[in-house]
Amino acid sequence: MADPLVGVLGATGAVGGVVLEVLVERNFPLRDLIPLASSRSAGTTINFRGQDLTVREATPEAFVGIDVVFSAVDSDISRELAPHAVAAGAVVIDKTSAWRYDDDVPLVIPEVNPGDIEWHNGIISCPNCSTIQMVMALTPVEREFGIQRVIAATYQSVSGAGAAAMQELTHQTAAVAAGSPPAVEILPRQIVQNVVPEVESFRPEDGYTSEEWKMAVETRKIMHLPDLRVSATCVRVPVYRAHSEAITVECTRPVDPDGVRAALDSFPGVRVVDDIAQRSYPTALDASDNDDVWVGRIRRDTSSDNGIVMWVVSDNLRKGAATNSVQIAELLSF
Amino acid sequence: MADPLVGVLGATGAVGGVVLEVLVERNFPLRDLIPLASSRSAGTTINFRGQDLTVREATPEAFVGIDVVFSAVDSDISRELAPHAVAAGAVVIDKTSAWRYDDDVPLVIPEVNPGDIEWHNGIISCPNCSTIQMVMALTPVEREFGIQRVIAATYQSVSGAGAAAMQELTHQTAAVAAGSPPAVEILPRQIVQNVVPEVESFRPEDGYTSEEWKMAVETRKIMHLPDLRVSATCVRVPVYRAHSEAITVECTRPVDPDGVRAALDSFPGVRVVDDIAQRSYPTALDASDNDDVWVGRIRRDTSSDNGIVMWVVSDNLRKGAATNSVQIAELLSF
Repeated sequence: MADPLVGVLGATGAVGGVVLEVLVERNFPLRDLIPLASSRSAGTTINFRGQDLTVREATPEAFVGIDVVFSAVDSDISRELAPHAVAAGAVVIDKTSAWRYDDDVPLVIPEVNPGDIEWHNGIISCPNCSTIQMVMALTPVEREFGIQRVIAATYQSVSGAGAAAMQELTHQTAAVAAGSPPAVEILPRQIVQNVVPEVESFRPEDGYTSEEWKMAVETRKIMHLPDLRVSATCVRVPVYRAHSEAITVECTRPVDPDGVRAALDSFPGVRVVDDIAQRSYPTALDASDNDDVWVGRIRRDTSSDNGIVMWVVSDNLRKGAATNSVQIAELLSF
Repeated sequence: MADPLVGVLGATGAVGGVVLEVLVERNFPLRDLIPLASSRSAGTTINFRGQDLTVREATPEAFVGIDVVFSAVDSDISRELAPHAVAAGAVVIDKTSAWRYDDDVPLVIPEVNPGDIEWHNGIISCPNCSTIQMVMALTPVEREFGIQRVIAATYQSVSGAGAAAMQELTHQTAAVAAGSPPAVEILPRQIVQNVVPEVESFRPEDGYTSEEWKMAVETRKIMHLPDLRVSATCVRVPVYRAHSEAITVECTRPVDPDGVRAALDSFPGVRVVDDIAQRSYPTALDASDNDDVWVGRIRRDTSSDNGIVMWVVSDNLRKGAATNSVQIAELLSF
């Protein structure tokens, strides 16, 4: 078969830009690439493999002939446009939350549930960034020890809120360095020299944010564990890239840190950095601009009998978004 | 009785400076104040109530005539000097970890266990900052619903590592704003635009840090709950003042968020800021330079039957150190 014609919807955004990088790095076989974006960005150019490509407006008619669309736009745009892309014969790999919870849309992390792509109907969803890295660390633990309960607290970078939020951190950093009050426009509160427990919107029904809710619902769907109990607290921190997560897991069988280290170490895409004698553990800076899910601080949970605590760090724009999406496309045949 | 003669050991440090502020603000009755510090700072002056006071060297003989000593120095200095202060007739209110775990030294949060000061033998310990704010939020929950297990993840400000760490954040912020690489000298890793899961030293026996271990051991001692199960992950974040904590509590009896809000709201020193309809919750900036323990994001734990999750923020230099120490002194009679 011919290499596919690839569309990148949201090519000028934070995730879209990394999708372009990852396609090149992984030498993804493609016949040609069509960057698509809103009318605001249409007509600008983006660079891909040394060529300047003109961004086209993402209209319902724009998908004719395209084989695979990477969608990294707002959810409402995806909900509107993805069906047109599917009708035009494309497979949509959707990074938004628009389709993730639909029963006929698989939610896929290639290392975890690659088989789920088989039942797609044109749309395959990529999980939320904070979910992906957690599930990458939970899956080897589940396979070896079984898991029944997860408690997570996140330390999420501003790039999860898009390119404008990254600029806001830059501007606020310059402001405080100059002794000026930082302007707050994109994120809900001042983020420089602060931490903010509001990521996405609040859910009146249970007091969680939708980001926190996603970590529970998506984890159950990806791992095929409908009864897994999950609670998360999601917090924005003044970091550009890479989310960090403190994760407590209750296992169904006796568990020990060395066994968890071994299970994680042999799982593709996971890098264990965990040697307290050397004071080694991953931080957001280590994991930035890198595809691995880094895990450290692995230790017995002193508050339960079969519990483990770990520290999981990964670049939210790469494995948390672009890389995972491209990996899904690599599972498809065209 | 005459008002006491007060000594402040470590008067030139981050906590010592706030002790001086809090003594003035609370109009603590004192006859006179003697600032004490290492030989390096001896001879410098500090301002107290508009007067310049000369800092004296903290020698074993320096405590003669002093009634109460606030100790905010390194643990090893406290271990050396506190017995001399007690021998000279002073009560030592010690902010270090030197004496906290001794069976004959009470560990006191005045709102929680004021009765424990009665059995002191000259030294009363002030708990660690991250413990104080957590226990302030746990105590009303324990009294109303009983608690059996606590899981905490912290977001700790650099002032917990002292004045030099605060300067390091300032210098690193200036460096990144200027596009230069930030120098790392005091904290274990670059802290600006990063988060670092290393607060205090690692414990080879269980992989926790001593900061994390303190949160378990101190909580059990203060709350008189020797069987309480606690696990913490302590993380440094690029914030100057105020620690934030994501806390999951398992209660022994059925619990609901409104009941927890009511219990917290009526507890002295706790301020509930929790209205998701208004997107209101506390952040480190709100709690800085303030004595309250701020609690928000109170919700049912979706991972257990009788669990509650909450977000607890407090200024580590004030209620987490200086204010709690002065409040202990207010319970003493001279």
